[in-house]
Amino acid sequence: VPAAVAEAVAARGRRVVLFGITGWADRAALERYTHYWVRLGQFGRFLRLARAEGCHDVVLIGSLLRPSLWQLRFDWRALRELPRVLRAFRGGDDHLLSGMARLLEDNGFHLLGAQDVAPEILMPSGILGRTMPDAQAQADIARGLALLAATSPFDVGQAAIVANGHVVALEAAEGTDLMLERVVTLRQEGRIQLAPDTGVLIKAPKTQQDLRFDLPALGPKTVEGAAQAKLAGIAVVAGATVVAEIERVRAAADANNLFVVGINPDSRG
Amino acid sequence: VPAAVAEAVAARGRRVVLFGITGWADRAALERYTHYWVRLGQFGRFLRLARAEGCHDVVLIGSLLRPSLWQLRFDWRALRELPRVLRAFRGGDDHLLSGMARLLEDNGFHLLGAQDVAPEILMPSGILGRTMPDAQAQADIARGLALLAATSPFDVGQAAIVANGHVVALEAAEGTDLMLERVVTLRQEGRIQLAPDTGVLIKAPKTQQDLRFDLPALGPKTVEGAAQAKLAGIAVVAGATVVAEIERVRAAADANNLFVVGINPDSRG
Repeated sequence: VPAAVAEAVAARGRRVVLFGITGWADRAALERYTHYWVRLGQFGRFLRLARAEGCHDVVLIGSLLRPSLWQLRFDWRALRELPRVLRAFRGGDDHLLSGMARLLEDNGFHLLGAQDVAPEILMPSGILGRTMPDAQAQADIARGLALLAATSPFDVGQAAIVANGHVVALEAAEGTDLMLERVVTLRQEGRIQLAPDTGVLIKAPKTQQDLRFDLPALGPKTVEGAAQAKLAGIAVVAGATVVAEIERVRAAADANNLFVVGINPDSRG
Repeated sequence: VPAAVAEAVAARGRRVVLFGITGWADRAALERYTHYWVRLGQFGRFLRLARAEGCHDVVLIGSLLRPSLWQLRFDWRALRELPRVLRAFRGGDDHLLSGMARLLEDNGFHLLGAQDVAPEILMPSGILGRTMPDAQAQADIARGLALLAATSPFDVGQAAIVANGHVVALEAAEGTDLMLERVVTLRQEGRIQLAPDTGVLIKAPKTQQDLRFDLPALGPKTVEGAAQAKLAGIAVVAGATVVAEIERVRAAADANNLFVVGINPDSRG
């Protein structure tokens, strides 16, 4: 995702400076652009470098696994902001991110979403590839979206797997890939009895989510995972899901006879 | 659980006849009482045997993993009822169970809950053992109960793990034991960063659940699983949770310094 956003922004003639978080960001994704490495907690270092580069707009990319406080390497500037950082840490992931957003804005940066600077990375509405969801899959999608709307106020991972009207899996801290692996295991062990090509992975942002960060993401790996779990397809919310490598997603969908559909957000239950 | 219910019922001077479902019921649990083995789908065999034994009241025990239709061995009587069975199969687990309940009642049986015939198997309110939930655990319990109330209309497994206000895991088809194992793995792999003795397993029946069947259950194995996941404790709804082997649950809680608490249902958010 960072490489796709950087490419789209650079294509618009804007200068890109990437700040990789040590231990999180992928080295190869950063190397084509001016870039710096920053440890989590080095807020002062980030401020100094970003100002020296003349940066004004900041885009946060990637969902942050909540780090332990003792993993952070606070610099002096971050320590000065520590009471705010600690307050941000107490709530859910939304709370952590919105705390970081306010911290950036109070320091004169303008926080944008990846979709503001690179709208082409967002999932379009409609089908990607050749396969269409059938009536059962459409009913499963509606049920999954309604379920995710219900769990949304609890700031919990926004993905579920629904098959023939039954909720097979709900995502929390494990993330989408491990949830899909779980379905593979449950099928193998006969704990769920489903015909192949049955069930839908549904992903949706939280209903009140600040769309500037932590949008649900979809990539070729998600499609491969759904194929291994023998699902019929994947449904995400159009315009509110980041699709990394959309052509590879389309190819993986077609290769596995899976549907990948962007649901119009107005049609969410 | 079946053995505990049978014992409690027999202690009241009522005659007990157990019908074990082949492949599901535990042989040892059945052997102390008059018992028969019935395959899933042998509804006619069950009717004939239960009538011959003079049974009137039926208690269903255990949550039924949804079997595949092709695992069922229908007898003629079941085939006659097949349209109703198939209708029952289309909905969620609630739907399946209430379909079975109606089928039994239309054939002259009276369906009771385990708690109707053996109230002593239900979780009492308050603490079991020595350990008490602290303020953070109490807040996590409230959040978990509110979350489960929100997912309840979706007929999904009714358990969650909440730690320091964050929803770490939500149960669906995998069941409580595998959800606890997942937290063990997530901790080991550093995907969740939690101090030991943090987090609560919360179990609750669905808000509109017919309490005659499929109550959440708690046993020594659940306590061991929660201990391995390094949780602070377990909270269930008093009067709406079956506790198998309550003394072993209490002993396991104390041995692991875990709290096990029955929450008064009136205090559910």
